[in-house]
Amino acid sequence: MKIFSRAELEHAFKLDTVALGVIRNGFVALAEDRVVIPPILSMDVAENNGEVDVKTAYIEGVPQFAIKVSPGFFENPKFGLPSLNGLMILFSSQTGLIEALLLDKGYLTEIRTALAGALAAENLANPGIKTVGIIGAGAQARLQAQALKLVRKFEHLQVWSIVPEEAEDYRNEMETVLGVPVTVQTERNTLVETSDLIVTTTPSREPLIEADCVRPGTHITAMGSDQAEKNELTPELLKKADCFVCDRISQSETLGELHHAKDAGITPETIAELGSVISGKSSGRQSEADITICDLTGTGVQDTAIAVYAFEQAVGLKLGSIFEE
Amino acid sequence: MKIFSRAELEHAFKLDTVALGVIRNGFVALAEDRVVIPPILSMDVAENNGEVDVKTAYIEGVPQFAIKVSPGFFENPKFGLPSLNGLMILFSSQTGLIEALLLDKGYLTEIRTALAGALAAENLANPGIKTVGIIGAGAQARLQAQALKLVRKFEHLQVWSIVPEEAEDYRNEMETVLGVPVTVQTERNTLVETSDLIVTTTPSREPLIEADCVRPGTHITAMGSDQAEKNELTPELLKKADCFVCDRISQSETLGELHHAKDAGITPETIAELGSVISGKSSGRQSEADITICDLTGTGVQDTAIAVYAFEQAVGLKLGSIFEE
Repeated sequence: MKIFSRAELEHAFKLDTVALGVIRNGFVALAEDRVVIPPILSMDVAENNGEVDVKTAYIEGVPQFAIKVSPGFFENPKFGLPSLNGLMILFSSQTGLIEALLLDKGYLTEIRTALAGALAAENLANPGIKTVGIIGAGAQARLQAQALKLVRKFEHLQVWSIVPEEAEDYRNEMETVLGVPVTVQTERNTLVETSDLIVTTTPSREPLIEADCVRPGTHITAMGSDQAEKNELTPELLKKADCFVCDRISQSETLGELHHAKDAGITPETIAELGSVISGKSSGRQSEADITICDLTGTGVQDTAIAVYAFEQAVGLKLGSIFEE
Repeated sequence: MKIFSRAELEHAFKLDTVALGVIRNGFVALAEDRVVIPPILSMDVAENNGEVDVKTAYIEGVPQFAIKVSPGFFENPKFGLPSLNGLMILFSSQTGLIEALLLDKGYLTEIRTALAGALAAENLANPGIKTVGIIGAGAQARLQAQALKLVRKFEHLQVWSIVPEEAEDYRNEMETVLGVPVTVQTERNTLVETSDLIVTTTPSREPLIEADCVRPGTHITAMGSDQAEKNELTPELLKKADCFVCDRISQSETLGELHHAKDAGITPETIAELGSVISGKSSGRQSEADITICDLTGTGVQDTAIAVYAFEQAVGLKLGSIFEE
C-alpha cells in the first residue's frame, strides 16, 4: 500500500488541460451510463458543528475506484485548524484490495470541483465572454477563476465577498495569478448585471443572485450548494434561464439548486446533466442571448477520475511512502 | 496519524467480556437514541463480482468515530486472495481530523459481529441451554461459538455445513478451542430439532431453517444475511416465533430476514431492536417455551464502538506506526 501526502499530490499534478480532460472523460462516462454511483453517505456530528460525507463511484474498465471521506468541522478555525479535511482511498477494481491512501486534505476535491466549473463554462458559456464575476473570495473563488482560464480568454474579473477585506485580498493575490485586471465589486447586484459569466462559490443559505439582475447571454455556474439547506440562486432564476444543467440531477434535487426550486414549485424549462451536454446527448446553449446555468454538487465520478489520475502521476514521479504490514 | 496492522489489532484485544461490554454499550446507545447512524453506502462492481460497503456511526460523547470500508470481491480466491478485506478510519469527533487507520482486513468486523451474537444469546436464550447448533463452518461459525462461551455454559455443539469436509475441519479444530464435544450433523433439520440455541452463519440465498423443525424454547441468531438477496430463515419461522429481535429494524427490512418476510406478507408478532431489549425498553423472551429470533445485519454503531476500543488498547500497548507528513 502506498501513502501520498497532500504536498506530494500537489507536486504530482496541476490544474491544467490534461486534468481537465480527465474530469471531462468522467462526466462522459456518467452520461453514457458506464459508472456505478451510489447515493452519498452523509452524517452530521451536530454537537461539534461537524459533518462527514462519503462519495464513491466505479467507472467501468478503470483499474481503481476511489472512496472519498470528507469531514467538515466548522469550529476548527477557532483551534487554528482548517474546517475541511479528508482523504481518498484507492481500491483495485479487480480485487478490492487497497492500493493507495491519498491523504490530500481536500486537494483533489478542490481541483476536480474547479475543473467541473471549467467544463460548465466550456460547454455552456458564450465563447467571447469578457467579464467574469466571482461571488465569494475563498479557495474555490480562486481555483474556479484559474480553471476558467483553461477554457475562456476573459479580459476582466470582478469579485464580491460578504467580507470586503477578503475580496481585497483576493484582488491583490489573483491579479498576478490570472494576468487580468481584478476589481472588487461592493454591490453584488452590479457584479451580476455587468458580468458575462458568474461563478458562485459560497456556503450561502440565502439566494445571492436575483433573477432580475441577470442579463441575456449570461452563464452562471453555482458550485457552492452541496447540502439540503444551502442555496445560491433564487428559484425564479431557474425559471428565467433558457437552459439548466447540473452535474447530477438526483443530487441537485436533494442537495443543490433544484432542491429549492422544487420547494418553490418551480421547474426549469429544460434540465440536463453536464456529461450529457458534453457528449452531445443533450443540448446546451441555443443562442448567444440564452441564459444558461450549471449547478455543481460534486460527484463520486469526479473523485474516482481525479484520484486515479493523481495516483498514476504520483507513481510516475516515484512519490509516496510504502507501508509494509 | 497512526497506522495499525491486522496483526497489531489482533494483539491489542481479544474476544472477551470487556469487548462484549463495549459492544453492549454501543447497542444501548443506539436504543437510547444517542447515536447518529446514516444508511449504509453500498456499491456493486458487478463485472468483477465485487461489492463495497461503507458503514459509520457517531456515538454522542465518544471522542472518535469510525468509517468502515468493506470490499468483498468474490473471485479473489482464484488469485489466492481473501474475498473480504477492508479498513476502518478513525476520525476525531471534535475536529474531523484523521487519528488512525486501522488496517484490520475485517478483524474488527469479525469480532464485533461475534459479540453481537453473544449479546443476542445473553438477552434472549434460555439460561440453561445445553446444545448449540451452528449452521455454516466458516470464520463466523467459529467466532460465534467462542463468543457464546462468554455468556452461556453449553455442553455440546453440533455443526452442519453445505460442504461436509468443512464441518469435519470445524470439529477437529473447535473441540479443543471450545472445550466441549463437537459433533458433525449431516442432516440440517436434525440439527435444528435437537439444538437449544442455533446460529446461522452463511451467505445463503435460500432459507436454511424451516418453521416446523424448531422446538419450543429455541433461540436462533441469524447473522448471515446482510444484503437484499440473502436469506437464512423461512418467513413462516418469523411468524411462528414469539419474539423477533434485530440489531436495526431499518436494515433488517432491507438487508435481513424481515425483508423476505415482508415480501411474503408476513409480519412477526413483535419486532424490537436488540439494544432496546438490552436496555429493558422492549421485552424479549417471556417464557422458557418461547421461540426467540435475533437477526443481525451489522451496524455502524458496533464499528465505531469496537474501533475506538481497539485504538485505545493498541495505543496503550504502544503499537502502531506513525505516519508523518
